[in-house]
Amino acid sequence: MGNIDIKSTTVGVVGLGLMGSSIVISLLASGHRVVALAPIPGEKERAAGHIADLLRHADSAGILQYGIAPCVNRMKLVEDYRQLAPCRVVLECVMEDKAIKKSVYDQIAASVVDETIIASNTSAIPISELQVLVPHPQRFLGMHWAEPAYMTRFLEVTCGKQTDPRIADYIMQLGIEWGKEPTLLKKDIRGFITNRLMYAVFREALCLAEAGHITLSDSDKAFRYDMGSWVTLMGIFRRMDFMGTTDYIKGFGQLFAMLSNSTEVPVLMQQIVEQRGRGVHNMNGLYEYTQEEAKTWDRAFARFNRDIYELAEKYPEQG
Amino acid sequence: MGNIDIKSTTVGVVGLGLMGSSIVISLLASGHRVVALAPIPGEKERAAGHIADLLRHADSAGILQYGIAPCVNRMKLVEDYRQLAPCRVVLECVMEDKAIKKSVYDQIAASVVDETIIASNTSAIPISELQVLVPHPQRFLGMHWAEPAYMTRFLEVTCGKQTDPRIADYIMQLGIEWGKEPTLLKKDIRGFITNRLMYAVFREALCLAEAGHITLSDSDKAFRYDMGSWVTLMGIFRRMDFMGTTDYIKGFGQLFAMLSNSTEVPVLMQQIVEQRGRGVHNMNGLYEYTQEEAKTWDRAFARFNRDIYELAEKYPEQG
Repeated sequence: MGNIDIKSTTVGVVGLGLMGSSIVISLLASGHRVVALAPIPGEKERAAGHIADLLRHADSAGILQYGIAPCVNRMKLVEDYRQLAPCRVVLECVMEDKAIKKSVYDQIAASVVDETIIASNTSAIPISELQVLVPHPQRFLGMHWAEPAYMTRFLEVTCGKQTDPRIADYIMQLGIEWGKEPTLLKKDIRGFITNRLMYAVFREALCLAEAGHITLSDSDKAFRYDMGSWVTLMGIFRRMDFMGTTDYIKGFGQLFAMLSNSTEVPVLMQQIVEQRGRGVHNMNGLYEYTQEEAKTWDRAFARFNRDIYELAEKYPEQG
Repeated sequence: MGNIDIKSTTVGVVGLGLMGSSIVISLLASGHRVVALAPIPGEKERAAGHIADLLRHADSAGILQYGIAPCVNRMKLVEDYRQLAPCRVVLECVMEDKAIKKSVYDQIAASVVDETIIASNTSAIPISELQVLVPHPQRFLGMHWAEPAYMTRFLEVTCGKQTDPRIADYIMQLGIEWGKEPTLLKKDIRGFITNRLMYAVFREALCLAEAGHITLSDSDKAFRYDMGSWVTLMGIFRRMDFMGTTDYIKGFGQLFAMLSNSTEVPVLMQQIVEQRGRGVHNMNGLYEYTQEEAKTWDRAFARFNRDIYELAEKYPEQG
């Protein structure tokens, strides 16, 4: 693949919803030229305003090394797929619908050179199923970002059955250039890594809360001060080693059989759905919020996300 | 219960294994007089050396406000249960065996005044089952610490069926005085809160790793940089609100059915058990370690645990 030269690699982003726009900011902050494509009529105008907001947010958080202006200069906001011609990497961030994605891939493929890598941000459809929709499946893979994409370090790269490992390797290298801590999922499994792990926690936590055994805030506190005291340093498996691996065996034998195996959407969440609760976004969630409190959480996360990464960097033990 | 006066409250700790000794240090650091009782013949001498080591460790980590000497002066290391007479709170940290605990409670009860609160550090036996073994079950509860007890902020207080809520409230207050962030489990469930949540993660993570879908280090990295970016700030339920509660519903429907429901000890762990692997403690675990690396992890955790708590304190949003 040759060496990575950010400045000479133009990246396309197709689909400018919340995640797509946020990814555009991350790429601009890294120094790429970006072709941001709005495939839905009318999306371009909305995206222009949203991207401007995000650039200000990123700038105020100290993420844009040279400020907003050079980022704006390196971005082209377009509606015509032919504008993707200079892109060597195109990230697809459209709706989780296979027919829509197929139509998007057809238009991307008709506009770029054969060497172009296409990556999907899907978190719902297996990469192997999407891969068969493009002319060069070996140059197709999954890139799973976390919101906000320009602040978080998370990047999960997923190979489909036909993905060329060298392409995955190149994208991993690119991820490092973007300041991410990319992880590689060699095989395409539903829910990827972190979603599956987190949903395992959600399932158990919601089951305990529904049974009235714990308050939400006590459950959160226990996690903040137990898991929080080591997870950024160690992750899960290192933690087991740190505590003495074998000592967990007894717990596996006793506890696994007690854990929730539910496949149902928890009642506690159903109620919030009926009230169209979107948490801090409309001040209606598992907790209650005033407008001021909702804003405070937004600011706090931006600061915390930066602080925790600075802290993580002080611990080179990870190797 | 009256106000809390640390200096006039003598606390007994019965059982001076790893956890009991570590709890002794936490109580001494908080200013209590402590009667540390070694119930097993020969345990007293071993405990004396171990407690001295832990005091040095705590001191080097900056936890002992007035150094080691006043702590030593406030501690009595004994073998005779009658020395527990001045204690108003006694913490039982002996083996997870109901018959042994019964014998220990009989001897504690014969030595203390009726008002004394007895708490078990069990993580395996339901509090309601232990509670019936003492003369005043309403004054009995669970206190679940995390290692090392003098550094971590975690403290899980568990009521049995007969526990007086005022006793639980008093112990919660005491926990705050000790610098903990105590949580209350109103009903006695196996595995308490955090153990169940963590084992839900372990089950899924080990299942993914065994299937060869991820490397251990990539799984750890994903957790360090995804969950690590918010868990200390938010916990689980707040995170759902922050991301927009309702958006999780689709994930519940799709992912719950894919998660591991295994009740078996994972093969990956069985292998380590056969090799008697105790992780960093004998340099044989899920990862490989040199002696120097094992030591580095120990030092890193002590520092990180302090750093992360300082960081958490900067975020008063939690209320």
